[in-house]
Amino acid sequence: MNRTTTEVAIVGAGPAGLMLAHLLQRAGIDSVAIDIRTREEIENTHRAGILEQDSVRLLVDSGVSDRVHRDGYRHDGIELAFGGAGHRIDFQGLVGASTQLYPQTDVFIDLADARVRDGGDVRFGVRDVSVADLTTDRPVMRFTDAEGVAHEVAAKVLVGSDGSRSICRHEFPEALRRQFFREYPFAWFGILCEAPPSSEELIYSHSDRGFALISQRTESLQRMYFQCDPREDVADWSDDRIWEELQSRVGANGYVLKEGAITSRTVLPFRSFVQEPLRHGNLVLAGDAAHTVPPTGAKGLNLALADVRVLAEELERHLRSGAADALDSYAERALQRVWRAQHFSYWMTTMLHRLPDASDFDVRRQVGELTSIVSSTAGSTYLAEGYTGWPS
Amino acid sequence: MNRTTTEVAIVGAGPAGLMLAHLLQRAGIDSVAIDIRTREEIENTHRAGILEQDSVRLLVDSGVSDRVHRDGYRHDGIELAFGGAGHRIDFQGLVGASTQLYPQTDVFIDLADARVRDGGDVRFGVRDVSVADLTTDRPVMRFTDAEGVAHEVAAKVLVGSDGSRSICRHEFPEALRRQFFREYPFAWFGILCEAPPSSEELIYSHSDRGFALISQRTESLQRMYFQCDPREDVADWSDDRIWEELQSRVGANGYVLKEGAITSRTVLPFRSFVQEPLRHGNLVLAGDAAHTVPPTGAKGLNLALADVRVLAEELERHLRSGAADALDSYAERALQRVWRAQHFSYWMTTMLHRLPDASDFDVRRQVGELTSIVSSTAGSTYLAEGYTGWPS
Repeated sequence: MNRTTTEVAIVGAGPAGLMLAHLLQRAGIDSVAIDIRTREEIENTHRAGILEQDSVRLLVDSGVSDRVHRDGYRHDGIELAFGGAGHRIDFQGLVGASTQLYPQTDVFIDLADARVRDGGDVRFGVRDVSVADLTTDRPVMRFTDAEGVAHEVAAKVLVGSDGSRSICRHEFPEALRRQFFREYPFAWFGILCEAPPSSEELIYSHSDRGFALISQRTESLQRMYFQCDPREDVADWSDDRIWEELQSRVGANGYVLKEGAITSRTVLPFRSFVQEPLRHGNLVLAGDAAHTVPPTGAKGLNLALADVRVLAEELERHLRSGAADALDSYAERALQRVWRAQHFSYWMTTMLHRLPDASDFDVRRQVGELTSIVSSTAGSTYLAEGYTGWPS
Repeated sequence: MNRTTTEVAIVGAGPAGLMLAHLLQRAGIDSVAIDIRTREEIENTHRAGILEQDSVRLLVDSGVSDRVHRDGYRHDGIELAFGGAGHRIDFQGLVGASTQLYPQTDVFIDLADARVRDGGDVRFGVRDVSVADLTTDRPVMRFTDAEGVAHEVAAKVLVGSDGSRSICRHEFPEALRRQFFREYPFAWFGILCEAPPSSEELIYSHSDRGFALISQRTESLQRMYFQCDPREDVADWSDDRIWEELQSRVGANGYVLKEGAITSRTVLPFRSFVQEPLRHGNLVLAGDAAHTVPPTGAKGLNLALADVRVLAEELERHLRSGAADALDSYAERALQRVWRAQHFSYWMTTMLHRLPDASDFDVRRQVGELTSIVSSTAGSTYLAEGYTGWPS
């Protein structure tokens, strides 16, 4: 057993864990971050790609990368499509903000490269991860590294940023923790296709056949989704059948998609989840380990980055100034945003998707809501604020 | 059988029917309005009491009454109470509009008095009402008056403003009509009590025990409601039990109610309903005959008045200028507002009530939404626009 010490031990080296390690280092705080996945595995996990304005700022201002500006695409609005037509929500005009189309995988690569560049201690591909002594002032993180060497890292604080299959959140005693769930009776059928963009901005399309989202990736690769049954089997869907479904959903609102070879098809589950509290002794949770949002509105990565931005601040207060309330303050500040984002994601989801048991009343009412949003500057602004991200 | 003719025959002489008759007379158009209820019956039906700005304007500008200003109470905002505190939505500051607390019964009395003053033809307490020949250019309304005399009134247009138990809407052929429904798994327990006001403005209170609404009527009479089971029996509720329930729901948010003798207790059902289209031949529907909203947000009477304001305009175009599209134009213009109001009522309802099968997630998410609304000027403005009424 190789015994070492650090200030902050981080379980989970996805974007949340790596960004935290990066921000801590800038504040002069040592950390060790581990992940059971290899770097290659994480790089090959395709996830959402819309960054809020403050997420972009965090990447650039903290010196992670300015590739987000060079290789990403700035989006100044979205199209809300319903009732036969598209209606643009002009983010710049309404709230002076934009989002950036930049895949989560690239955010991860930038962060992992920055850790290498800055000499950060990050171990990928570890196994046998556990945490212990959480309520003492010397909690430990144990793991076996990729070479088979067993380690025990004693720290002042442990951070569980180990994603939606978090082991850390299970370390909260049952009597203490509350888990908040919501399931949805639908999923997204997501594709990657080799085609030019069909639209410069994202199209959120409501239709009698259900929701569709037209997104982009590059000039020659596009990302699109349509609402489906959670038990849908991708093997049942030929390229032709997929294009027919997508064209029909956006065609109802006057759009025509540019088609191309479909290179990837996946069914993405829908789920809302929050665990409270975010702190137990000297263990805190951040990112997907603490909360999951449905993909509508793309809040997942942004919420994880917002968590660790606040957590880095509060850890600095805790470790440098000995502020006794810092870890609780993190939990409180983060949760306020988490519940607002949970509502935003739920709202975008329920406003645009067709529920399997929806009555005709519900569909008309959705169109009534969408009409109210696009015909009111205040309504459009409220949506734009949530989409581009509330200030910290 | 007494046979007469008129231009517009109006089935239903509640606020919608009487306001229509009044506006038509101002445009020089004859009408006959009937109701199966006596004037006294209608006057003793207690209903909502919040008028949108344009509803007040319609009453005053069309010369019905300025009693609404003298005897009503102007409200410049509401309190949204949740999470332990009240948060004011400042209608004047946000949208430069107010609402007026003035009971529907008084609106009816003012309109009925105006019809008498202006010599309008209104018959209360009739029976055996029927309509026929709807798709001809000479549709008829038949009834037996309070003295037992049978009448047939031939008109150019028939209007069904005969409320939620409308007979007129059943005259739309089944193949043509669509009925949109939504039931809610709760109701309101409404009381009148002899007490001074507990608050100057309405309090919409979210709590773990469910929704409560603190409203007012006069300096010595108050109207309050709390969410209950639709099968609740008022006989099971003593004054003490009612006050305990109300105090507990608003007490969670820091309010204390002034108590007094409870003089009326009723369970109000919740339901959303729309029938489309609003026109069949020369019969059109208006007000509750065409749509019902749940009481949260007080849209029912306002929507009925908005309907007949548009209908009077379009009937004038139809009858004076022979505009072939006027009745369809009424239907289209009215329905756009109806669906926005349906959404607004649904939104206020689902944001504030506790669903019987609500998970803890849903309750936290509601608080997340309420937090977003009160912490965003745009969100508060969007709510204020809907509450005080969108412009025509």
